[in-house]
Amino acid sequence: MIRTLNISTAGQGLVLITGEVEAVVRESGVPEGLCTIMVRHTSASLTIQENADPSARRDLERWFNRLVAEDDPLYTHTAEGPDDMPAHIKAALTATTLSIPILDGVLALGTWQGIYLWEHRHRSQSRQLVVHV
Amino acid sequence: MIRTLNISTAGQGLVLITGEVEAVVRESGVPEGLCTIMVRHTSASLTIQENADPSARRDLERWFNRLVAEDDPLYTHTAEGPDDMPAHIKAALTATTLSIPILDGVLALGTWQGIYLWEHRHRSQSRQLVVHV
Amino acid sequence: MIRTLNISTAGQGLVLITGEVEAVVRESGVPEGLCTIMVRHTSASLTIQENADPSARRDLERWFNRLVAEDDPLYTHTAEGPDDMPAHIKAALTATTLSIPILDGVLALGTWQGIYLWEHRHRSQSRQLVVHV
Repeated sequence: MIRTLNISTAGQGLVLITGEVEAVVRESGVPEGLCTIMVRHTSASLTIQENADPSARRDLERWFNRLVAEDDPLYTHTAEGPDDMPAHIKAALTATTLSIPILDGVLALGTWQGIYLWEHRHRSQSRQLVVHV
Repeated sequence: MIRTLNISTAGQGLVLITGEVEAVVRESGVPEGLCTIMVRHTSASLTIQENADPSARRDLERWFNRLVAEDDPLYTHTAEGPDDMPAHIKAALTATTLSIPILDGVLALGTWQGIYLWEHRHRSQSRQLVVHV
Repeated sequence: MIRTLNISTAGQGLVLITGEVEAVVRESGVPEGLCTIMVRHTSASLTIQENADPSARRDLERWFNRLVAEDDPLYTHTAEGPDDMPAHIKAALTATTLSIPILDGVLALGTWQGIYLWEHRHRSQSRQLVVHV
């Protein structure tokens, strides 16, 4: 089964999507299998991170923003804005696809794991994900 | 088929798990298919790296430890120890899930490829992996 | 279905392989499913990046070359040449396997997404990919 999810983002940051992906797994009725998620963009990405303390996600975001600076004179690809090339680099450093086993009808994530869509652009975007079960 | 593997780690470093994953593939009896591995933690990760010269893994570890320093004043998420936030960042930079084709009943890895569980915390941990064939 | 692809590279850079992977999907005749790609090397990797403006790929390559410098005194694994250890680090920072849903018989990629084999060595190489549908 394949479903397309549309997720709205409000600028840079991690958006929890575990619930939306779990809903697709539930709808599929598959007791044991594999769930694959792909983001259909090159300036947003996916990550599995701690879902408890929000300070961990904030630090993660700030660390990546420092590593992949916007005002880097190295960039020649600047026509789409100062946040575009950093967005592509961050996408390459993280994940575009994730595959998570399904056990007893639910995603076999650890207790502290959440699935996040990572928006790398400043402006709000509508992002498409493809979920395959 | 799904199996849960428990792997003990002895502080930071790469732990070879190719044999454990191969054993699950053998048990499944699947001649041609896909094997997916997920680590159920956000302070450890997965990587496929050279399985020959151990100096390559040592350099990899040291390079990551320099890039993601422990004493970084940027961190606010410090309640779980100085190695916790670096561990989350390293997990985001590497992989939480890997999918490897199975050919003729074995993982279709290259000659020099090994599957590694990458422990990012200093203390010994018991880590859970979920393997789906 | 599993196919092995041999891709020639001409030194460092991103080689577009969307067409080669699409050909395997077409051959399989699968209308809805999952396509997994694995590179069988630890000094080359995979990424999904923008397929439009080549300047984005050039900047990406230059940014990674600056982050993972060749003349880093940290390296002890130097027997295979100055570009070998950087190649392993870049492979760890990017992807060795990718899984892409298949919808209506084609890869469900976004409009601007291309699949790239990323060569990290200076010399031309023949690289093997395993594609599972």
